[in-house]
Amino acid sequence: MDRVVKLEQIEHFDFITDVAVCGYGGAGASAALEARRAGSEVMIFERFSSGGGSTALSACEMYLGGNGGTKLQQELGFEDSTENFYNYLMACFGKYADEARVRKFVDGAAEHFDWAEGLGVPYKRGFYPGRDVVAMTGDSLQYTGNERAYPFNQQAQAIPRGHLPADADHDGGKVLMGHLMRNVVESGADIKYDARVLSLIQDENKRICGLLVKIDNKVQAVYARQGVILAMGGFIMNESMTKQHIPQLESICTRHGNPGDRGDGILMGIAAGGNAIHMGQAFVGIAHYPPSDLTYGIFVNEQGQRFINEDIYLARLGDYAARQTNQKAYMFIDNKYYSRPDYHETTEIIAVGETVEELERESGLPEGSLQHTVAYYNQHAEQGVDPLFHKSADWLAPLVTPPFALVDYSLATLKPTCFTLGGLDTLPTGEVLTAEREVIEGLYAAGRTASGIPRTGEGYASGMSVADATFFGRQAGISASQTSRNEPPV
Amino acid sequence: MDRVVKLEQIEHFDFITDVAVCGYGGAGASAALEARRAGSEVMIFERFSSGGGSTALSACEMYLGGNGGTKLQQELGFEDSTENFYNYLMACFGKYADEARVRKFVDGAAEHFDWAEGLGVPYKRGFYPGRDVVAMTGDSLQYTGNERAYPFNQQAQAIPRGHLPADADHDGGKVLMGHLMRNVVESGADIKYDARVLSLIQDENKRICGLLVKIDNKVQAVYARQGVILAMGGFIMNESMTKQHIPQLESICTRHGNPGDRGDGILMGIAAGGNAIHMGQAFVGIAHYPPSDLTYGIFVNEQGQRFINEDIYLARLGDYAARQTNQKAYMFIDNKYYSRPDYHETTEIIAVGETVEELERESGLPEGSLQHTVAYYNQHAEQGVDPLFHKSADWLAPLVTPPFALVDYSLATLKPTCFTLGGLDTLPTGEVLTAEREVIEGLYAAGRTASGIPRTGEGYASGMSVADATFFGRQAGISASQTSRNEPPV
Repeated sequence: MDRVVKLEQIEHFDFITDVAVCGYGGAGASAALEARRAGSEVMIFERFSSGGGSTALSACEMYLGGNGGTKLQQELGFEDSTENFYNYLMACFGKYADEARVRKFVDGAAEHFDWAEGLGVPYKRGFYPGRDVVAMTGDSLQYTGNERAYPFNQQAQAIPRGHLPADADHDGGKVLMGHLMRNVVESGADIKYDARVLSLIQDENKRICGLLVKIDNKVQAVYARQGVILAMGGFIMNESMTKQHIPQLESICTRHGNPGDRGDGILMGIAAGGNAIHMGQAFVGIAHYPPSDLTYGIFVNEQGQRFINEDIYLARLGDYAARQTNQKAYMFIDNKYYSRPDYHETTEIIAVGETVEELERESGLPEGSLQHTVAYYNQHAEQGVDPLFHKSADWLAPLVTPPFALVDYSLATLKPTCFTLGGLDTLPTGEVLTAEREVIEGLYAAGRTASGIPRTGEGYASGMSVADATFFGRQAGISASQTSRNEPPV
Repeated sequence: MDRVVKLEQIEHFDFITDVAVCGYGGAGASAALEARRAGSEVMIFERFSSGGGSTALSACEMYLGGNGGTKLQQELGFEDSTENFYNYLMACFGKYADEARVRKFVDGAAEHFDWAEGLGVPYKRGFYPGRDVVAMTGDSLQYTGNERAYPFNQQAQAIPRGHLPADADHDGGKVLMGHLMRNVVESGADIKYDARVLSLIQDENKRICGLLVKIDNKVQAVYARQGVILAMGGFIMNESMTKQHIPQLESICTRHGNPGDRGDGILMGIAAGGNAIHMGQAFVGIAHYPPSDLTYGIFVNEQGQRFINEDIYLARLGDYAARQTNQKAYMFIDNKYYSRPDYHETTEIIAVGETVEELERESGLPEGSLQHTVAYYNQHAEQGVDPLFHKSADWLAPLVTPPFALVDYSLATLKPTCFTLGGLDTLPTGEVLTAEREVIEGLYAAGRTASGIPRTGEGYASGMSVADATFFGRQAGISASQTSRNEPPV
């Protein structure tokens, strides 16, 4: 089945609506809700028997701030200017950042929190100051990324921006998607489950005006007067695509997402003339905390050299570990700060010893390399400084309490959690762009089907995916509902 | 103008041929010649007023071997088994390698040398043993890549594979393309210059059956009975594409190629349903030699740590330098081995001193870091070993002769030579593939319009591009000429 078919090939339309949304995860549901609220007829086509997508599988942190702070940030005493938020995101993604997209996001992110709360998602007025992937205290605000770490703490004031549904721990996705989907149902959107979208329909002017979808094993044609929104996730579950685009991770990664993350939306968008960008970029998660005390440890490569400030976010560690020769990374830590990591039960202690020299010999690291690295680190940690990588003084302490351990965090043995960050190039409105950045009429994309705010593992922070998917899902729904209605050929 | 137009839209064909070749560089000329030799009518469409493409701008080394060695390798006493050649290329590109493509190449590369010599390209039976980008002795065989460096010297026997036209120095491209284009003319191919290909023509079965080309400012339609070959170069000269796909290099690179490297072939291929892969990969050249004595120096990052064995190929250095924080890299060298580099006149000496400690202070490197790195390196170089990066003993010598210098090779100041390695996914036959790796009938790609043998800067070696472009250009020409002829609608 071609991914794009011509309008003239369609003899009969089984359904006619204003906005057709493909995928009922965070991006699709947000798009559908906004399009309905703006007065458009909306149909949603979801491949599986229930909605939620990868958003429902996440803790559903949303990375939000700006405008002086979200209601939650402000009530908890944190001020976060739009410029400060902008500076942080630009520091995260550097030359990869889409400035127009980042600007749109920082301008609207505070209101986006009100929108989520308005859906009924409970947020507890509590700030969790600790260092954890997901606050397990029930509190709704926490630091989730590199805010407090070098070099980010030099480029923007550190502010917590992770907004987590109350008392949900890792199950925030069920909470947020539950409320979001209830609102979608109440809005009157027509939701078709077990409906696999196969193709887009293109009119004689190359405008996307509908889609073909398989329901009850029958291919049915849908005409969309205002447009089609692709919100079908990324491609981490498509092994042929991961082989093509992230071969260096394909065989070692633990694929993180839902079974529908097969790249269908991206491939249909390309077939319609869309441009896929950053297809080689991925999130590589090495959760070296909690417990946060493990942050006192130091990471070394197979040369026994440090390569990062250990107080960074887990995906930045993953990105840097992947750059080391043979993707090898080891944590050196002493008995005072060591404990079993909460995540990655696969980590193995490859050497234990009363002295660093003993550890070095046992692990086969180059003679003298680890000894120098530890001595140099300890000498400066004693003074509260890290001249090499500028790890925050909060996490600097000499590692001097034997026994010492070397723990293997090498990618091949750890099998880090990965998901893809590449997707269709879009405007902040969600409109899909060609390679010349010309708009493809009638076609929108959001969520991981698009290349969003988070574009590199190096700059990623927890909460960016859900915030991007829901925020820009909304923009796509609003944009589509504002376009003039076309009518199907009679 | 759409990049793909439907056959039914074409009222009249200005030209009818068997094989239409887009681009008259190394890949296009090789494709055209083979198609003609196989008995097909051939038309070539070249955007500029003369042929040659980027191949003519290169020294025209070809990276060849296998089958016991090329005639040149064997006559100079080098044996190179097909497996040894295969093992080397697989070591170079690892998980990025296309095994079927590599296999086809190593099986045919020795014959490819005979083909080139048969065109009239002179190769001098002389081996240049030195370490240089291009042998300036007139000799035709040299080492050009990482063959003698770790870890490659562990995975394959080091053999010189750079085949250089005789006595041409950096002008080998003019020599090879001169002979190749003479053969193309003699073969009776019809060459149209100042002919810019705009679109592919697709028949009702999605087969590519022709193209639209602008000649004398008039759009003309060409029907190709057997197929169309895209050999239009890479995209390093297309600023919007480099911004999209290699943003980390876009602003700092010195763009290396010909003005036609605008990605037109890649974009037309995508429009026809082709799949572009590795679009984020690029060659980043930091020529830290010649003079070869500079190889005795060591590179450190902004932490004052070494990060690579300095006896590697220049693009591997570029790739590793790009991974360091802030893309900073500095060469430390002593007075015994220092001299002005032949390339990169922009390199600046940022510190000179009688002691390493003085140098460290002057350059602002972390206190003690460079001193340790140099002391550790010297101590082991004295014994002829490099425990950290396994630099070959040939290039290990203690750096102890003051004054010492620190030379800036940071990417932003050096502005390294870059070109793109991403392109259309193809079979070894040159047939362009969809995302599901299904063949697009009638469409072929070669040269940097395709993703070829060299897929990462990390594993690149001089001569791989020209060898890949001409070898797989030939395969595309042969494949196209073997397909059954379709006839234009009357």
